[in-house]
Formats: sequence, structure tokens, C-alpha cells
Amino acid sequence: MQDTTLPSNDEALCAFAQELADMARSISMQYFRTELDVLEKDDLSPVTIADRAVEAAMRERIAQVYPDHGIYGEEQGQQGLDRAHIWVVDPIDGTKSFVTGMPTFGTLIAHLEEGTPDLGLISIPPTGECWTGQAGMPTTFGDSRCLTSGCTSLADARFYTTSPDIFDENGLRCFEALSRRARMRRFGGDCYAYGLLASGYVDAVFEMDLQPYDYMALVPVVEGAGGVITDWQGRPLSLDSDGRVVAAATGELHREMLEIIATVS
Amino acid sequence: MQDTTLPSNDEALCAFAQELADMARSISMQYFRTELDVLEKDDLSPVTIADRAVEAAMRERIAQVYPDHGIYGEEQGQQGLDRAHIWVVDPIDGTKSFVTGMPTFGTLIAHLEEGTPDLGLISIPPTGECWTGQAGMPTTFGDSRCLTSGCTSLADARFYTTSPDIFDENGLRCFEALSRRARMRRFGGDCYAYGLLASGYVDAVFEMDLQPYDYMALVPVVEGAGGVITDWQGRPLSLDSDGRVVAAATGELHREMLEIIATVS
Repeated sequence: MQDTTLPSNDEALCAFAQELADMARSISMQYFRTELDVLEKDDLSPVTIADRAVEAAMRERIAQVYPDHGIYGEEQGQQGLDRAHIWVVDPIDGTKSFVTGMPTFGTLIAHLEEGTPDLGLISIPPTGECWTGQAGMPTTFGDSRCLTSGCTSLADARFYTTSPDIFDENGLRCFEALSRRARMRRFGGDCYAYGLLASGYVDAVFEMDLQPYDYMALVPVVEGAGGVITDWQGRPLSLDSDGRVVAAATGELHREMLEIIATVS
Repeated sequence: MQDTTLPSNDEALCAFAQELADMARSISMQYFRTELDVLEKDDLSPVTIADRAVEAAMRERIAQVYPDHGIYGEEQGQQGLDRAHIWVVDPIDGTKSFVTGMPTFGTLIAHLEEGTPDLGLISIPPTGECWTGQAGMPTTFGDSRCLTSGCTSLADARFYTTSPDIFDENGLRCFEALSRRARMRRFGGDCYAYGLLASGYVDAVFEMDLQPYDYMALVPVVEGAGGVITDWQGRPLSLDSDGRVVAAATGELHREMLEIIATVS
């Protein structure tokens, strides 16, 4: 166990976030590919014992080390969102992947200062991979710096969406207009797709119906790798965003996508 | 290098198939997540240098060890399909996964005797996982035996399809009728979904437009784990099948799926 007080500077925050990710990983992997009671929430997304155990542990540790920080988690809600510092966590992003044994689910951890995400981690427990983004710093993948691709045109883009099922009627129209212009479209990414975008293997991700714990951690990761991530109107993502997210490897590609969205919507 | 002649019994065939999978893995991982010239074939699926390098190496080794066996590969076609023994290989199944850095692509290796697949391997190079099925033997995942789930009803099933884009109009109707009845549907599996079915984490997979090198290796893996895999009419999969595949954890679930297909088609 580490000392329970850490200085509130960027390096300490980053080390603490990594500690949270490692802890989350050790818990979630105890449950991955084991028999689970999959409960059903109101919105019918599967939520597991693992999900709750991971979030409870992260919350406890945050409260211990940073008692004056707020917390916004998927499972156990919000507390202290009026604080200057807030942690936004998703214990298991990609629960469908998790409950079907697919090794691409993630744990998402974001730190917000005055509402702006200045630290984000995409940790993939089964593979041990982790993308870390910090405001003003290059995004890292493990020990290496990562960069988005130079893709500037949808016609050349490798395009990801977790599932066509996430869209409403207008969203589906936008999705079709965008993805049909892309070089290739593939389904089934969750947070992993945004990590791959930061590393230059995916050029565009387009989604809706995301919650803050689904997207806040992605922002520093994508931006620190040279990409652009906003809502469908091009506005920065915040706790108040409408859950519509468009991410692109370059500003040019992002602009092309926004223009198509504006035309089709 | 091993001795170039091996006895043609089941154990030797299995060891040889594992050798092929290991060799394929060492080649494909040299190219995974590196810059690649992605060429476009007539059917617009991406095919990489890696794909061709892996298949060429597998073909050379098969010809060396089993010169009287036929070979059917994705990239370099068919030879000696009139032989009693045939190898059916897909160097990289899930090329979209491969070219986007997603660690769930596979190498598929099947051995057929008189047209019947009696050995199948689903090898996942990035994770080092491998499912091995042999006629009359329990399927293994690494060193462990694996079993399908006991799921007997679509209403309880975790349902996978690589992409809705693989279906024609009738196929899409069947897919919707099946997957909308399922407990959950997820996209983006390729061969990995069939391995997860063999291990009991996925209950049903439904696809069309597959080629023999996409499905022959799956048959011994799924059947040896207690599952059922056929075409959409319930007929055994063979080199002459129409590429429509339905796989289920149990006979009951498989029958329910066939009945729905027959009703909707």
C-alpha cells in the first residue's frame, strides 16, 4: 500500500491513475472468463459483479488519497461534482465484450480539473495494454509515444463503431453517410477503438449514446496523440455533452466528418 | 527444422498443424501493427503482405512434409483437391482486425480426410491463444479441455456476427429475426467468436458469405466442445457448402435457430 497522501501535481495524479488502473485490472481479471451472474439494468446493458467490485475499489482508493476530489462512476453514481477535481471512471467499458470472453474490454479513468479532462487512461486488462494521455504531453502506449495516422480523408479512413445498435434514426443516417464513404468500416470496438486511433491503426470513430464515463478518458488520449475528438457539432466534450462523439486522426478528417454530419442531420 | 517425413496418424497431423500455427504466428506478428501496403482485391477485402507471406510458408511446409496432400488456401488457391488428404488454411482470418491493430485476428488450419474435417485449429497470434479440435476428441484451449455453454434457448443466448455488412437481403432478414430474439448481440468476431463459443462464453454465431478456409477449421473445434455447426439447412459443412454458417452451443439452440431461419427465409 502506498502512502495515503500524494501531492496534487500532474505527475502524482498520473502515477495514482496508473495505480488505479493496475488495481482495477487485478480485480477484473479475477472475474474475466469465469461464471458470472449477469444482471440486467434498466437499460438492459449487462452489468457484472466485476463491474461493481472494480468501481467500489477505485472509489475507496480515490476517497482515501484525494478526499476532496469528486467522483463520477458508471455503477455507483456521482458525488462532489461541484469540486475542482473530479475523477470519472468506467470500471468495465465493453461489458458485452467482457461477458463473452472477448479480450478487448477496458477500464477508463479520467481526471478533470474545473471540468476539463487533463488526464485519461484506457487500460485493457486482458492484454495488459494501456494508453495514457495528459494535457500538453504526448500520449503514451506502454512506454512508447503514440501518434495518430496522417489520414486526412474519409475515403482513406479505417472507420470504427461499436455497433449499429447504438444509433437512433438520425444517428443511423449520419453513421451510414460517414461509414459508407470510408475505406473500411468495422464494428465492435468500445474504448479499444479510440486507443487504436491514438496509435494510428484506426482513423475515425463515430458513436452516440455514450456517457461521460465512456468518453472523458478518451479526450486526453486522442488529443495527446495528435487526433481530434468532439461532439457531433465540433464542441469540446464535457460532463454536459449529449453523448455524441466523433474522433478523427487529423483535423482535416474531423472537419470532413462534421460537414457530412451537418448535411445529413 | 523437424524431420521432413512424419507418420500420417492423428497425433502426428495434430503436432504438424500446431507447428504450422506457430510458424504462421511468428510471421504474422512481424507485420502486425507495422506500416503495411494494404492492397485491394477484386472483392475489396484488404489483403496484406503478411497474409501472403504466411500462406506461402504454410504451403511450402505442407508440400515438404505431406507432398501427397492437397492444399486449399485463401491467397494462393487450390491444388490437389482430389486427394484423400487436404489442408484448408486461412493465413489471416479477420483482415480488418489485422489492419486496424485489433488483436483478435486468427490463423485457421483444417485437415480434411475424404472431404470431412477431422482436425481444426483456431490460432490467435497476438494473444498466443489456440483452440484445437480433433474428430472424436475433446476440443482443447491451450492445455485445457473446453466445453460449450449449456444454453438451449435463443432468449438466453449471447449472439455474435462479424458484421451486418456480410448479409444479403434474405440473410439480413434471418439475422434480424435471430439476433433480435437473443439476450444480446455483438458484432466483430471473425473466427474468435467460434473459439469463444467452444469455450462457453458465446452461445450462437450466425454468418454468411464465408469461404471453406473461413469455416472448415471451425467444425472440429465447435463439435469437439459439444457444439453444433452446420449450414443454414442443418447440413454438415463441406468444401461445397454455400458459405452460410450457423453455430450453437447445444443441439436444442441449433434446432431453434434452424426453425427460425426456415420460417423467415
